[in-house]
Amino acid sequence: MTASETSHPKLQHAGGLDFAIADITEAEYGRKDIRLAENEMPGLVDLRREYAEAKPLHGARIAGSLHMTTQTAVLIETLVALGADVRWVSCNIFSTQDYAAAAAVVGPHGTPENPQGVPVFAWKGESLEDYWWCTEQLFKFRDENGNVVGPNMILDDGGDATLLVHKGVEFEKTGVVPTVADDDLTVADEERVVLATLRRSLAEDPQRWTTINSDIRGVTEETTTGVNRLYQLAERGELLFPAINVNDSVTKSKFDNKYGIRHSLIDGLNRATDVLLGGKVAVVAAYGDTGKGSVEALAGQGARVIVAEVDPICALQALLEGHEVNTLENVIDKADILVTATGNKDIVTVELMKRMKHQAIVANVGHFDNEIDMAGLGRVEGIQRITIKPQVDEWIFPDGHSIIVLSEGRLMNLGNATGHPSFVMSNSFSNQVIAQIELFTKHEEYNKDVYRLPKHLDEKVARIHVTALGGELTTLSKDQAEYIGVDVEGPYKPEHYRY
Amino acid sequence: MTASETSHPKLQHAGGLDFAIADITEAEYGRKDIRLAENEMPGLVDLRREYAEAKPLHGARIAGSLHMTTQTAVLIETLVALGADVRWVSCNIFSTQDYAAAAAVVGPHGTPENPQGVPVFAWKGESLEDYWWCTEQLFKFRDENGNVVGPNMILDDGGDATLLVHKGVEFEKTGVVPTVADDDLTVADEERVVLATLRRSLAEDPQRWTTINSDIRGVTEETTTGVNRLYQLAERGELLFPAINVNDSVTKSKFDNKYGIRHSLIDGLNRATDVLLGGKVAVVAAYGDTGKGSVEALAGQGARVIVAEVDPICALQALLEGHEVNTLENVIDKADILVTATGNKDIVTVELMKRMKHQAIVANVGHFDNEIDMAGLGRVEGIQRITIKPQVDEWIFPDGHSIIVLSEGRLMNLGNATGHPSFVMSNSFSNQVIAQIELFTKHEEYNKDVYRLPKHLDEKVARIHVTALGGELTTLSKDQAEYIGVDVEGPYKPEHYRY
Amino acid sequence: MTASETSHPKLQHAGGLDFAIADITEAEYGRKDIRLAENEMPGLVDLRREYAEAKPLHGARIAGSLHMTTQTAVLIETLVALGADVRWVSCNIFSTQDYAAAAAVVGPHGTPENPQGVPVFAWKGESLEDYWWCTEQLFKFRDENGNVVGPNMILDDGGDATLLVHKGVEFEKTGVVPTVADDDLTVADEERVVLATLRRSLAEDPQRWTTINSDIRGVTEETTTGVNRLYQLAERGELLFPAINVNDSVTKSKFDNKYGIRHSLIDGLNRATDVLLGGKVAVVAAYGDTGKGSVEALAGQGARVIVAEVDPICALQALLEGHEVNTLENVIDKADILVTATGNKDIVTVELMKRMKHQAIVANVGHFDNEIDMAGLGRVEGIQRITIKPQVDEWIFPDGHSIIVLSEGRLMNLGNATGHPSFVMSNSFSNQVIAQIELFTKHEEYNKDVYRLPKHLDEKVARIHVTALGGELTTLSKDQAEYIGVDVEGPYKPEHYRY
Amino acid sequence: MTASETSHPKLQHAGGLDFAIADITEAEYGRKDIRLAENEMPGLVDLRREYAEAKPLHGARIAGSLHMTTQTAVLIETLVALGADVRWVSCNIFSTQDYAAAAAVVGPHGTPENPQGVPVFAWKGESLEDYWWCTEQLFKFRDENGNVVGPNMILDDGGDATLLVHKGVEFEKTGVVPTVADDDLTVADEERVVLATLRRSLAEDPQRWTTINSDIRGVTEETTTGVNRLYQLAERGELLFPAINVNDSVTKSKFDNKYGIRHSLIDGLNRATDVLLGGKVAVVAAYGDTGKGSVEALAGQGARVIVAEVDPICALQALLEGHEVNTLENVIDKADILVTATGNKDIVTVELMKRMKHQAIVANVGHFDNEIDMAGLGRVEGIQRITIKPQVDEWIFPDGHSIIVLSEGRLMNLGNATGHPSFVMSNSFSNQVIAQIELFTKHEEYNKDVYRLPKHLDEKVARIHVTALGGELTTLSKDQAEYIGVDVEGPYKPEHYRY
Repeated sequence: MTASETSHPKLQHAGGLDFAIADITEAEYGRKDIRLAENEMPGLVDLRREYAEAKPLHGARIAGSLHMTTQTAVLIETLVALGADVRWVSCNIFSTQDYAAAAAVVGPHGTPENPQGVPVFAWKGESLEDYWWCTEQLFKFRDENGNVVGPNMILDDGGDATLLVHKGVEFEKTGVVPTVADDDLTVADEERVVLATLRRSLAEDPQRWTTINSDIRGVTEETTTGVNRLYQLAERGELLFPAINVNDSVTKSKFDNKYGIRHSLIDGLNRATDVLLGGKVAVVAAYGDTGKGSVEALAGQGARVIVAEVDPICALQALLEGHEVNTLENVIDKADILVTATGNKDIVTVELMKRMKHQAIVANVGHFDNEIDMAGLGRVEGIQRITIKPQVDEWIFPDGHSIIVLSEGRLMNLGNATGHPSFVMSNSFSNQVIAQIELFTKHEEYNKDVYRLPKHLDEKVARIHVTALGGELTTLSKDQAEYIGVDVEGPYKPEHYRY
Repeated sequence: MTASETSHPKLQHAGGLDFAIADITEAEYGRKDIRLAENEMPGLVDLRREYAEAKPLHGARIAGSLHMTTQTAVLIETLVALGADVRWVSCNIFSTQDYAAAAAVVGPHGTPENPQGVPVFAWKGESLEDYWWCTEQLFKFRDENGNVVGPNMILDDGGDATLLVHKGVEFEKTGVVPTVADDDLTVADEERVVLATLRRSLAEDPQRWTTINSDIRGVTEETTTGVNRLYQLAERGELLFPAINVNDSVTKSKFDNKYGIRHSLIDGLNRATDVLLGGKVAVVAAYGDTGKGSVEALAGQGARVIVAEVDPICALQALLEGHEVNTLENVIDKADILVTATGNKDIVTVELMKRMKHQAIVANVGHFDNEIDMAGLGRVEGIQRITIKPQVDEWIFPDGHSIIVLSEGRLMNLGNATGHPSFVMSNSFSNQVIAQIELFTKHEEYNKDVYRLPKHLDEKVARIHVTALGGELTTLSKDQAEYIGVDVEGPYKPEHYRY
Repeated sequence: MTASETSHPKLQHAGGLDFAIADITEAEYGRKDIRLAENEMPGLVDLRREYAEAKPLHGARIAGSLHMTTQTAVLIETLVALGADVRWVSCNIFSTQDYAAAAAVVGPHGTPENPQGVPVFAWKGESLEDYWWCTEQLFKFRDENGNVVGPNMILDDGGDATLLVHKGVEFEKTGVVPTVADDDLTVADEERVVLATLRRSLAEDPQRWTTINSDIRGVTEETTTGVNRLYQLAERGELLFPAINVNDSVTKSKFDNKYGIRHSLIDGLNRATDVLLGGKVAVVAAYGDTGKGSVEALAGQGARVIVAEVDPICALQALLEGHEVNTLENVIDKADILVTATGNKDIVTVELMKRMKHQAIVANVGHFDNEIDMAGLGRVEGIQRITIKPQVDEWIFPDGHSIIVLSEGRLMNLGNATGHPSFVMSNSFSNQVIAQIELFTKHEEYNKDVYRLPKHLDEKVARIHVTALGGELTTLSKDQAEYIGVDVEGPYKPEHYRY
Repeated sequence: MTASETSHPKLQHAGGLDFAIADITEAEYGRKDIRLAENEMPGLVDLRREYAEAKPLHGARIAGSLHMTTQTAVLIETLVALGADVRWVSCNIFSTQDYAAAAAVVGPHGTPENPQGVPVFAWKGESLEDYWWCTEQLFKFRDENGNVVGPNMILDDGGDATLLVHKGVEFEKTGVVPTVADDDLTVADEERVVLATLRRSLAEDPQRWTTINSDIRGVTEETTTGVNRLYQLAERGELLFPAINVNDSVTKSKFDNKYGIRHSLIDGLNRATDVLLGGKVAVVAAYGDTGKGSVEALAGQGARVIVAEVDPICALQALLEGHEVNTLENVIDKADILVTATGNKDIVTVELMKRMKHQAIVANVGHFDNEIDMAGLGRVEGIQRITIKPQVDEWIFPDGHSIIVLSEGRLMNLGNATGHPSFVMSNSFSNQVIAQIELFTKHEEYNKDVYRLPKHLDEKVARIHVTALGGELTTLSKDQAEYIGVDVEGPYKPEHYRY
């Protein structure tokens, strides 16, 4: 480990752990919050119970890049309970809950003075440089002899950890990291930082990522965006290890994306602005799972919702649920709230923002901040930015009217709220744990491709959570099961079933 | 053609057509209703316009077995406009709208005296014998020389036409149709009739179905139930010709099944009973697409809905939408309305029905009448059946309390209402037309397997209907399309996407 | 009785009764429907039980003018069970259910050959002349000696029976009925018929209405419209007898108006047109109780609803429930369905109807047909009317586009559906019965003014229906009751409470 | 002013003002928040504009006791803009937003060093002694000569300021304040503090309250609870000055109570617990306006709601909206969340709390903390209280299971959230301002009774807010207005209309 890598001011060592977080004394509250969250995460608690003895993740070194929240702490401690060695970063510069990071470092049996948890590198409000420095730390496990070794598993959200390995390997092959001109506007700030990180890495160790990659058994990916990247890599034959697409487990995509955002969109709007949602015009860009959850939440509060969609099938769904479908261009003038949930880029342009009503609110629940042209907004001649409170900025145009942008255009459900609630994450994270076990223990059965979890595991996750909510399931008779051509125990639906 | 086959009292000949319907003078109202329906079926109207010149179904002889309603008449006339020769039956003994059947026979240019439409064999209230006699008539096209020939395409709903061919071929191979003892309770009435029909057919012509089958290019199937049968046949290697699963086009299963039933369930309940739905406890068995539509309709009218589910994923969806999930056994005593939407059998047993409240309502929106044990109900010692009006029976138990069973346990949205509304069927039937064109014109490219329509056709159907509802779609920029890895024109989602 | 009065072709005599209905043989179905309805009308059934012995309406001669439906038949038979002598007409030319009229004439113990029920003068599809002839028959009770006597109580809906008495007395005072010129467009057809009726009456007996009036103890009025008329009479000091405003019992106005129409609006739309409501733009004029029920029903089916309102308070409610508020002028071009629920006149003008989309639907759930300018529509040069089926007319404008008008612009929930469902009417009609008892037995305590029922009776009605729906009420402790200043038994709210 | 009164450690003097708040440097954020709130309070902004010149409150000394939030600051500054002298306290020990209190002291033109706003005595987390000390400070205005004088107007929420005057006068009449034994469990802690306060006051100045009372022109009261107290006083003939019941303006009770809580209940639950509401069983005690808003919010998030009600009319409404109605006793075992919205006392007993599920949540949105037996809870043998974070306590029963109680049983929408949002409060507070003007300028026209604002003022408030939400109202023609017996300009409904 070279000086350059360890020189970050946040880096600390205690209790035999290295970590970089905001404030370890916040662990007290974090531990309380974890205790409450465990009651809402029956899936993870059940998996701990089921695998208490077997410890199927013994030997796993899991590099986790996923919003460092209380729920994630419960996930981390489940992975540890199943035998894994774990390091963690947040996959978003604003999404860390500092108390959760502290609690994860302290662990269930440690204290702030003598932390016994896992190494976490994450705090709320990282710079881009911080962010990629943290991501780099993910890859520095220690073996029993204290030597730095890489992970053998990745647990990813959005694909940044996976990206770093892939780009690292790519550049190590060519032996050079491309340079970009400072004034080249086609290159995003973030890309520059990634390149700088890898340029430094290449200089330090020209085989680091190649070595790391050789150990990796696979990645389990959490989100639509990360999964899209994986499918693109696989299509081009460039995927370096097997991947399990956790996002497309039904109990993930149709629950986390939809019901999580149904909860946390309005939570974030309320905490950020306290504006009455009832009676307002809310425009939601995209009616995918996240968009559907957004619309349900806003309508449930009495807002009038207009949906913008590219996909005619989703648009037709929106219409048949009673919502106007129109383009942002056509309706932006009457929007009180604009929510972008596309997972695509360049959705909310400066031209659109200029046309919005005074103090209209702009919120991103898609994935990356490039859904909103924040850079362009900052370049508007004469624009003024007033920070009302952290993650709530009023941008005042020269004509005096303003808009409110949440979380600097990044995911507001994480930046302005506390992310998805525990119960929803219990579904997603149960799939994550199951996928980690699957890939870690059976990696030889998988090719360098993207897989989904088999449906019976999806149903297993659902079953635990139905029971936790007091639901009572009906049992098929053998005769009935045969009649519809399924097993009594399931799975109950064909692969293509849409729920 | 032998005497035995033609001896049905309903069989008529006029205007060069043979047909069997209730009353051709009802065509006047039927034609008016078709004119209104065309305004609500933009998909079919658009396809007529698109293919007005090409007539891609020229040469097709389509045997259609699908509820003979006004909407189906618009479908039939679209197939004819595209060049097809068509014969039609209903796939349910109660689902025919007699005026629609009459209008289809008369056609857009005929009169009741000189019908110029298509041969239809269907009326509301067929016996089982009638039903299978009608289905047999499907297979008697005439070639240009007036000789009886079979169809070369099947358009099926539930799979009865397909079944007859498969069973016919099977028995012709062995040369014998199995016999069943009259008192064998394991054999349903319907199966006996099918066997009798084929026994007679075998006697008349031992190669009829083999010959018919040799001409058939494929089948397009409308429903979950029929599709399940096809997959089972294909799995066993017994499928005789290629099949397109229309049911699982998104614009079918997620629209027809859900939004169609959302409309027609309460329409049927209202017409049958006029009972206030608000404040009542409605129990819905199954939360698939049909169940979801049922629940939304009932909740939209202020009923309290309890869901019974086998599949934990669907059950979890029901819970997260705010509904109690419980077993029929546990909640039957408080149900005012019981809706079965499973597509499975033996759901509503006599024991359950006995326990229901006085004048509680039992309704089937699944598929076959075996969801409800009607036979068992009729065998209850001392039970009394009072027909309130057609398709509405009060069954009075010996203790004096009664239940109301709709449509004799068959599909009540067809028996008590007028089926799915035109707009919904425009989606399904556009898929049917597209699937017929696909299989008829490209059958050589298909194996004896079950296929789904490619997604871009699904999106095409959706696009037409979005426009018809006044929705305005957003267009992706080339850059955005590349970013998410799709074409600007779509398809916009991966195959496994669930909507 | 003079020849002129008895000469109506529908007038019949049997079983000692005079009546005028469509077809007495329809009573068989009507009696079945009454039996089902009784199960849904726990309020009336309870009142029969409570007053079985006391018969508080013994001696009452009740003239009832209220839609002659199955529910009304249960009301009539409750009044009879409580001792009253009853005569009945419908208060709307299209709202009679002929089987219910027949069943009411036959009664629970009669037969079509020997009717033992009450004299009813009502059939579906009366002319205006029929209608007022029927209303006149209301006032011809027979005393024990067979002499014609007037009623001593009126039960009114819309106030037509009350109007006839007031106008009759007024003209008898002056001795002259005003004449109107045939071409005076300011006078509606209906007014001409009323004047003609009274002109004839005055000629026959110059004191008839004065005599009738002297016997009348009071009127109980069912609807907003009728109540408005009563308040206007009372304000001008012209009210001839005490009136109880049943409409403004909470269990009437907030239940019948709202939940009744929530049920019957979509029932009527479905029966009339079978058009999918989901995805359509529905414009509702007025957001009073009826408008609120309309909007809830349409939204519950997935329609997008726009509300037109005069009253800013109701408009603000609509906005906060998520609906656009706009004027008919601004949005008529995009309306697929236009529902008028104002109770006012001249809402849907010909100019608006001309601008509607092809085959857009126009429906009235307000009160009188003057909400829609039907007369003006008929006068459009070159317009063509095609009756699709009874109460469903397509009006084709000269440019070829058309609109669908339901029930000739009258109440479509009665004309196209079967009116409010039994359970809702059980609330309203329980109030009616209680109000009749109150006024009949305590008329001396009332002045010639308009009264509402005391709140504890309102709560009594509610209590019965809560229990019938399986609801379990909480009981206040004495201490709690004192704390909020009410009795343990209620009433629980101040008079001005709005629910 | 005696030493005893001024000795509070929070009391400060600056810029010529006396005040007692948490931290005046929080004013910076508070002023920003006020600026945002003004955009959401079009009613108050409009009134400032309308009365900018007239200054109808010139000479008014208004003692305000109402949650000291940002919205209240906008109200205060509106009163000041209309000419009033104002002093303020919060009416709840947890409801103060400290930044809003600071901002109100600083005022629009002051600085933290030189505050130019109004004297505020309020901070989040007062003790009961603090609370009543603050309330006492309300009554110490200074006249132009610097002498202490009382207010001449009260603006009250819950009636505590009014109570102090009434009790003060009462005890000054008898010359003695009753004493209560320390161990008398029938006397609440709060009552003891009030008595102690007045005992001290009586000792200091035996005519203080009598003198203060002689100046008071009237009170305008905000809430149901306060209004109930006023009606009870008026009924007993003990009301000392006229009162305007602002609560029962439609634009208050049907908006603030319903739509405010619809917003802030879930905001508070989310901020306090982050628990997913979807799929949970939420029990709501009382289905008044607040209960209705609570239920709508919870259902809108996918919770299953059960309603407990005393009033059968409200219960019937709950049933017809699709909710189960049951008693707390019957359903407490399955409640995940219990919301009490009754305005009554002793609703959530210790016995009920003991039976709740592990970590179930108890929340009060009624009025006083006596809805929940917090005292009893604290007395449970062996119970343990863990403060998760401020206003969120986990109470662990000896058996190890726990419940989460929000805001120590007080109003959680204020304690755990930020109270009702600005837009809703703009409605309520516009009524308050109008009522203050009315009583201050026309007090001679009022008796010592409780009045409601005339309906045209209610409609005026609504009209402003409809316009602000982009709604467009329809205008009655003169002819239409006459037809329904109203003025073209309104009011549009009779007094008893329920909306």
